[in-house]
Amino acid sequence: MNQTIETHLQVGSAGTSEKKLFTFGEPPGELTLESGARLGPITIAYETWGELSPARDNAVLVAHAFSGDSHAAGYYKDDPPGAKPGWWDSLIGPGKGLDTDRCFVICANILGGCSGSTGPSSINPRTGRPYGPDFPMMTIGDIVETQKALLDHLGISSLLAVIGGSVGGMQVLEWCVRYPEMVRAAIPVATTMRHSALAIAFNEVARQSIMADPLWNRGNYYDSEPPHLGLAVARMIGHVTYLSDEALRRKFGRRLQDRERVGYGFDVDFQVESYLRHQGSKFVHRFDANSLLYITKAADYFDLVERRPPARSIRDLTGAATRFLVISYTSDWLYPTYQARELVKALKRVGLNVSFCEIEADCGHDAFLIPDKRLGSLVGGFLDNVRRS
Amino acid sequence: MNQTIETHLQVGSAGTSEKKLFTFGEPPGELTLESGARLGPITIAYETWGELSPARDNAVLVAHAFSGDSHAAGYYKDDPPGAKPGWWDSLIGPGKGLDTDRCFVICANILGGCSGSTGPSSINPRTGRPYGPDFPMMTIGDIVETQKALLDHLGISSLLAVIGGSVGGMQVLEWCVRYPEMVRAAIPVATTMRHSALAIAFNEVARQSIMADPLWNRGNYYDSEPPHLGLAVARMIGHVTYLSDEALRRKFGRRLQDRERVGYGFDVDFQVESYLRHQGSKFVHRFDANSLLYITKAADYFDLVERRPPARSIRDLTGAATRFLVISYTSDWLYPTYQARELVKALKRVGLNVSFCEIEADCGHDAFLIPDKRLGSLVGGFLDNVRRS
Repeated sequence: MNQTIETHLQVGSAGTSEKKLFTFGEPPGELTLESGARLGPITIAYETWGELSPARDNAVLVAHAFSGDSHAAGYYKDDPPGAKPGWWDSLIGPGKGLDTDRCFVICANILGGCSGSTGPSSINPRTGRPYGPDFPMMTIGDIVETQKALLDHLGISSLLAVIGGSVGGMQVLEWCVRYPEMVRAAIPVATTMRHSALAIAFNEVARQSIMADPLWNRGNYYDSEPPHLGLAVARMIGHVTYLSDEALRRKFGRRLQDRERVGYGFDVDFQVESYLRHQGSKFVHRFDANSLLYITKAADYFDLVERRPPARSIRDLTGAATRFLVISYTSDWLYPTYQARELVKALKRVGLNVSFCEIEADCGHDAFLIPDKRLGSLVGGFLDNVRRS
Repeated sequence: MNQTIETHLQVGSAGTSEKKLFTFGEPPGELTLESGARLGPITIAYETWGELSPARDNAVLVAHAFSGDSHAAGYYKDDPPGAKPGWWDSLIGPGKGLDTDRCFVICANILGGCSGSTGPSSINPRTGRPYGPDFPMMTIGDIVETQKALLDHLGISSLLAVIGGSVGGMQVLEWCVRYPEMVRAAIPVATTMRHSALAIAFNEVARQSIMADPLWNRGNYYDSEPPHLGLAVARMIGHVTYLSDEALRRKFGRRLQDRERVGYGFDVDFQVESYLRHQGSKFVHRFDANSLLYITKAADYFDLVERRPPARSIRDLTGAATRFLVISYTSDWLYPTYQARELVKALKRVGLNVSFCEIEADCGHDAFLIPDKRLGSLVGGFLDNVRRS
């Protein structure tokens, strides 16, 4: 095992990538969403790393989390000096856990997002104006259907693996339930098979924060000032749930910002306040408030256990050949390890081949995004085994 | 021990109580706050239950939590039928943990509050208008000083006990540090000796939510519509932190509100959403947004460990005769048991007599407010011991 680990150290950069667009579902061939609404045409922004093998059997789909995008690794050609690489650059690249010398890695911005794929801020072809609140409510299953359409377009009918964390992990599981025959290996990370009341509660507070901002204007703000204050508070709520008590103590404790004593006012006193305000105000420049509303709703709807047929649930995976590596983090209290164990149990109950690893980390839910060789080693070793089998 | 427990079952009602007002600190004799600001006159609303003994040695001060008030037990004379009793009615009354046949129980609305005591919504005598943002920033120590003035007024120079949960527990600890010779027994419940980064983070998000509401108007809203939307979101944030993952699962799970299926819209789908919205909208009719801002700040400033002399810290309790009963709850993640243990350690380090009890409860921080015979039994038994010693 140690030898396997050693071969998956983070060694190279995934290099540059380019955002590409794929459009499908022109009327009358729109996508019928789980709600019954029809949506189309749909554009999906995606990026790829590595080369598709002649046998077309080395594709890995990376599913991003709620506020992520298609830029999972490497740099853009026109990145300014000092730009940060993609959000999972520590995992994707030559010699890394998702080894781009061997895999063809694909990551697409999710439906409902705001980084190139069709979402509430996109132009509604029927009106020539942004969808806003006319964007239909969607589900994790709908997101998966758009990814399936993209793979069809790329000529990929089998995936070596689907991997993703948090809301990305939900997509992984939904893939397995919808297209088990297409997925050789699934790696759900820091996620759950059914969104808990606590997670719904935090999402609902975030949504209410946006909706309380008068600039939200029932979702019609694309011609005016956007609801930045409400969105910033929503992001601050999210950020607290991504961290852990321990991480906050270590990172900030009760340290004061810029002064010797507390200020006895409502300006920032503590570093943790400054951090949260910064996270909130940074976020509003890159994310759309309506996207947050729709994507959190999709996550809240996610439940692989109780589903009305004909929707497939986790029980319908009986007999699937997909191999699972389930990963959780010790200090993640948004999608805690006990929920990962419930997932493992449910998968084993229907006879699947499941490996499970809880990674010791004190940084909360965010741990899956923080560069850590252990994740790369686990993923690389697991995929080696899958290839050999 | 079991016999002691049996004698403290919840047996009687505390009967009716009446809100009384005490005013002190007329200029030029204002109270000098910890910040250096001067405030006066100050009115404190308080209620009492039971009779002060001729020896004046049976007084128990109950300190309320952030959104509480002086109405800790019993009913008001003019309560409509079906009205709820005070917030700690399960603990206060004849034969209960705080036995009003034996104790004289006092509870005062805290400084900065909005239930009769001077706070940001009170009239500033200098302007004839509500203080609003001119209300001075205050600390837990300042709250204790107003309680001390009330006790002086009532002719009470020694307390059988001070007891309180959450922010009330901070007041208990501050009492011990400021007036150790006055406090025979201290019962800090579900609290901490220094507000953690996580707790500060949640308070800061709640504050930002209020300040993001344009109706807040920098605290000047008493002549106009108050910032109810921002305050409701702030309350929702608080409510999530008062519960636990387990309690939310048990109480709500993923149960839907009023329907067979999800609604694919932004109306309430899940019961937990309905519950939070209800908590938020109920709160705005009884609480002042500025009070929330000032009281959360006082909690955030609370740190009994690192203080600049001459302010007294927990180390200055060396040699005090006060006996402690520290109580925490297993599922409280806002003020977790490890923080109670740190408190116990710090008290023992300076040689104090400390009992500690962690109560098994799955309902989170709120546990201390939920009627539970165990709390009454612990408190009653502890006070029996204190009386005997």
